[in-house]
Amino acid sequence: MSVSVGVVGFSGYSGVEAVGILGRHPQCEPVLLEHRADVDGLKLLRKASVRRAPASANSVAAEGLRAVLLCTAPEVSMELAPKFLAAGAVVVDLSGAFRLRTPALYKAWYKEEHTAADLLASAVYGLPEFYRNSVRGARLISNPGCYPTAANLALRPLLAAGLIDRKAGVICDAKSGVSGAGRKATLKNSFCEVTENFSAYSFFNHRHVPEVLMNSGLEEAEFSFTAQLIPIDRGILETIYFRAWKPVTAAEIMDVYSAQYADEPFIRLYQAGSVPDLHAVAHTNFCDIGVVADPATGRCIVVSAIDNLVKGAAGQAIQNLNLALGFDETAGLS
Amino acid sequence: MSVSVGVVGFSGYSGVEAVGILGRHPQCEPVLLEHRADVDGLKLLRKASVRRAPASANSVAAEGLRAVLLCTAPEVSMELAPKFLAAGAVVVDLSGAFRLRTPALYKAWYKEEHTAADLLASAVYGLPEFYRNSVRGARLISNPGCYPTAANLALRPLLAAGLIDRKAGVICDAKSGVSGAGRKATLKNSFCEVTENFSAYSFFNHRHVPEVLMNSGLEEAEFSFTAQLIPIDRGILETIYFRAWKPVTAAEIMDVYSAQYADEPFIRLYQAGSVPDLHAVAHTNFCDIGVVADPATGRCIVVSAIDNLVKGAAGQAIQNLNLALGFDETAGLS
Amino acid sequence: MSVSVGVVGFSGYSGVEAVGILGRHPQCEPVLLEHRADVDGLKLLRKASVRRAPASANSVAAEGLRAVLLCTAPEVSMELAPKFLAAGAVVVDLSGAFRLRTPALYKAWYKEEHTAADLLASAVYGLPEFYRNSVRGARLISNPGCYPTAANLALRPLLAAGLIDRKAGVICDAKSGVSGAGRKATLKNSFCEVTENFSAYSFFNHRHVPEVLMNSGLEEAEFSFTAQLIPIDRGILETIYFRAWKPVTAAEIMDVYSAQYADEPFIRLYQAGSVPDLHAVAHTNFCDIGVVADPATGRCIVVSAIDNLVKGAAGQAIQNLNLALGFDETAGLS
Amino acid sequence: MSVSVGVVGFSGYSGVEAVGILGRHPQCEPVLLEHRADVDGLKLLRKASVRRAPASANSVAAEGLRAVLLCTAPEVSMELAPKFLAAGAVVVDLSGAFRLRTPALYKAWYKEEHTAADLLASAVYGLPEFYRNSVRGARLISNPGCYPTAANLALRPLLAAGLIDRKAGVICDAKSGVSGAGRKATLKNSFCEVTENFSAYSFFNHRHVPEVLMNSGLEEAEFSFTAQLIPIDRGILETIYFRAWKPVTAAEIMDVYSAQYADEPFIRLYQAGSVPDLHAVAHTNFCDIGVVADPATGRCIVVSAIDNLVKGAAGQAIQNLNLALGFDETAGLS
Repeated sequence: MSVSVGVVGFSGYSGVEAVGILGRHPQCEPVLLEHRADVDGLKLLRKASVRRAPASANSVAAEGLRAVLLCTAPEVSMELAPKFLAAGAVVVDLSGAFRLRTPALYKAWYKEEHTAADLLASAVYGLPEFYRNSVRGARLISNPGCYPTAANLALRPLLAAGLIDRKAGVICDAKSGVSGAGRKATLKNSFCEVTENFSAYSFFNHRHVPEVLMNSGLEEAEFSFTAQLIPIDRGILETIYFRAWKPVTAAEIMDVYSAQYADEPFIRLYQAGSVPDLHAVAHTNFCDIGVVADPATGRCIVVSAIDNLVKGAAGQAIQNLNLALGFDETAGLS
Repeated sequence: MSVSVGVVGFSGYSGVEAVGILGRHPQCEPVLLEHRADVDGLKLLRKASVRRAPASANSVAAEGLRAVLLCTAPEVSMELAPKFLAAGAVVVDLSGAFRLRTPALYKAWYKEEHTAADLLASAVYGLPEFYRNSVRGARLISNPGCYPTAANLALRPLLAAGLIDRKAGVICDAKSGVSGAGRKATLKNSFCEVTENFSAYSFFNHRHVPEVLMNSGLEEAEFSFTAQLIPIDRGILETIYFRAWKPVTAAEIMDVYSAQYADEPFIRLYQAGSVPDLHAVAHTNFCDIGVVADPATGRCIVVSAIDNLVKGAAGQAIQNLNLALGFDETAGLS
Repeated sequence: MSVSVGVVGFSGYSGVEAVGILGRHPQCEPVLLEHRADVDGLKLLRKASVRRAPASANSVAAEGLRAVLLCTAPEVSMELAPKFLAAGAVVVDLSGAFRLRTPALYKAWYKEEHTAADLLASAVYGLPEFYRNSVRGARLISNPGCYPTAANLALRPLLAAGLIDRKAGVICDAKSGVSGAGRKATLKNSFCEVTENFSAYSFFNHRHVPEVLMNSGLEEAEFSFTAQLIPIDRGILETIYFRAWKPVTAAEIMDVYSAQYADEPFIRLYQAGSVPDLHAVAHTNFCDIGVVADPATGRCIVVSAIDNLVKGAAGQAIQNLNLALGFDETAGLS
Repeated sequence: MSVSVGVVGFSGYSGVEAVGILGRHPQCEPVLLEHRADVDGLKLLRKASVRRAPASANSVAAEGLRAVLLCTAPEVSMELAPKFLAAGAVVVDLSGAFRLRTPALYKAWYKEEHTAADLLASAVYGLPEFYRNSVRGARLISNPGCYPTAANLALRPLLAAGLIDRKAGVICDAKSGVSGAGRKATLKNSFCEVTENFSAYSFFNHRHVPEVLMNSGLEEAEFSFTAQLIPIDRGILETIYFRAWKPVTAAEIMDVYSAQYADEPFIRLYQAGSVPDLHAVAHTNFCDIGVVADPATGRCIVVSAIDNLVKGAAGQAIQNLNLALGFDETAGLS
């Protein structure tokens, strides 16, 4: 029997992706929850059979929703999450509203007041590879940002193993496809401005940075993050530079990853000296990781790649949903 | 000594192109005429040395403008053209405001009233290959649309030669890069909607159709025009289908073109059976024409290609300007 | 219990697609059949668990193959199909080797001798929407070409209904993504030659033309086919022009399609006056069809869109396989 | 009066660019020097009026060549440079053949013997911003690599000013368009492999690295260079990370650049905190440089952008040619 899962923001890129995954999910059925101007989404969801309802708490009972995915901006998530939780639904929020631990931190990075601060304490950060057990019992899951997903999966095992010379600094040169900016009309992301171009748009202070700090234990001064735009639809590739404390080979670094990720269904490790490209992860929920190292100097480079709309958004959200609802973690995702 | 030429709408794609051509022009110097929100154009025109002035009639005297290019929407052109003309400048208008012959025709295709209808009678249609002498003495030149430029240059010699069976219909399957839609924020032209896509967006009733009819003599029922979007920045390629009255070879059709265009500096003809692609014309003022024919059945295909921002807009405007001001027709364009 | 299905040519674009679909198929399991230089395909098929075997008849028994998909060039298909058939496997051939009815026709269009001509008589043309019952019992299924799939699905119902004035000619202006040319190193399809370009590469005489003639009943002189390259990875969009015998509305044409395709799982019809773009069909097995018409003149335009690697190749091959093996026709495809 | 300049390799991307620039050059006229399979280049050079001659020493006298540009592979340059020099022509070599100082260094990085080693001593490294006077008198000019041009122009002033903590390491995360790989058929650079992808292809050991070391004074262990492929035609953007010895603002770094580059015609500096994108430099001979810094920690990021076919190849070659032949340095380039 199918479980009904609501999707708010179903006409955005991550919303469309979520509806698609739920449509292929053996135990779930999507319900489109209409909020504001979602009419435009119709074209992308031509298959007429998908149920629709208003994005209101009443729809939880009326449609029998066990869970709701919020593919929305933070301010919308702060407005809707309390209502859906109160109505009894599990909520997976794809915005940044519940990722940081305190209202002060939120204000510092998002430049606005948090209007649902009482929920921060109970929100679980939904990076299953590290918080799987917490996600299992969670009612409010905060889905990680796309950039931090790729960065944390690459950095955390190496930091835990004490391999990285943090004082020498960790540099994450990140590149993203345009869908990461969401589905909206802006001159900056119009076709002619993006095609045949490449541009860096954020240095040091991207709002995804604190997610990396709080998960990796790095200090802000130790982590340099650059966000850059590739003229493609989807995909994030991060080239991460650091120094090891001691001479280390790429194979030894891969051993650290293998020990950590041996049983992970969505992490793929590359042979030492090989790295992923974006085609390898497009339309999948995988995070692919490869390493190059110069043992003579301790210089190391990790390349981490995901599809920003899948492992970086809707795919990871369904992975979290699967854990929260007791389904197989990979259901709908392979 | 340099002649000053004003450009209104210098931050749009055709405006940027016009300023660039004028900057390379041996006899001209561009002056940016600021109208409404042109601040954004600064980034594209970083070379600081270009003069600036308000887009008002006073600037004609103050800046010594011999001519003004209006790279603007029709409603702005209808507002500004009379003022600049009254102030003594030659005006080349790149919008559709002065292309059609009557206010009624304008209203029928542009869905709004013409607010400068008294100028229609004196406006010269600036397709130099056919109206060169009129352009030479003109004070108001209406620069042709991008699609009609490619279509008229392909069709007119063959219609004049009586080669085309008009009753059988002429089909123009046209494809354009995205810059043809102008520089503005729309969801439809955002990168993720356009990349890896191809879409037809206008059938039969594109507002460029009447320009083809009035130049070629075709009836509306005889000319089927389809406009389609290619995921590229610039370029128009038209695949034009028709039937010849009698068996005809591609070489015989090329002979008709050769007779017409032998001395034209901006028309390039291909060997019979060969056709241009868009790389051949990118960043040039050329219109490239090639022909394929099946003599057994009279079926003919002409491929006509231009750069929509050059021969389809700014380049042709400068070509017209050169004629109007008595310069070499190719100055700045080769 | 899973049925084993071999794939020859698994490192080409349609082969990769076929392996992917079989991997998601509830009743099938892919076996990679190695033929010549397939090593390069490894990178695209990193998931190590897929079985491998030589592309020889012995593998049918050794691996328990019920069927083999030939994602190969015609000359390879002519060599391998007889062997796999003799060994007891159902064969679905994605090349053009068995699409035409006679060796003479094959030689005329493919410019080489047919080396397995005795199989032509028993090969079933695998367009399920019209030959479903024949496919059900077939042992050798010839998968249609990508262009003819989109064209035949659009044209055949209208020709059957006697709606098209054939003497006036049917024009199919077809555009395809680059993957249609296969996975190989050519200067013509290198990135820098294709990006920001659009080019027509075949007029009248594409080898897919006879597939349209034999299915639609059109004469060669009545059907003008142009093949053009879009700078995208995947997708075919055909803009088809014809004249109706009598005044007809788009809605009336859609009624003809509705009557024919009401129960088809992979045909989607658009509202009269609306047409599909390529995003609508990307990564799906759908053929989307829309119509625009000018009743006053009888001029009609049909837009037909598919993903050339799915409905135009691997997806349709699995659809045929499902029919031949008695599975649900949509298994693995939705 | 025009000076004749030969171009060998005129059908490659940098050769086409060189011919184009020479065609617009007020004092030069290109002569296509045919070497091996250059027939394919015809399509790109349709303007029939360009002279042609064999790529042999005799053509120097026969065509009155003052100079020859070698847009060729290193092994061809090593074969032809001695011949053209002996015949009296100035040679600008765009390959890597004469960039390194010794045959041993050449063999270490290019993995083959140097076959014209006696010319190494007299070859001048053609980075005009630093070797202008040497270039003026040179007969053999070695045109810098594309990556090193962007890197050296960014790094050298800061290293000279003693601003960079070399021991902390300099990281150059470089991204290039596909034309940097040359015009040839490879699967790796075919459209479908590149579009919607992003890939890193060289870590630490790219053959352009020694050009940066020898110009900047950095040790190999201090300079980490990563080469990555962007799905665009042309452009190189390098994101360069380093630590300053002491707290420094972006404005202070820009002051160092301003002092060095105040009179340079082809260096454009950005306001502190702003950085260039690739559209800013496309089809120009500019190198654009911008800086972001975090004074609290000494972390600095420089973004350096060029068009790899212009300032990174043909444009810089003409700039060198202008110096060597005594023309205005910017002739043909603005």
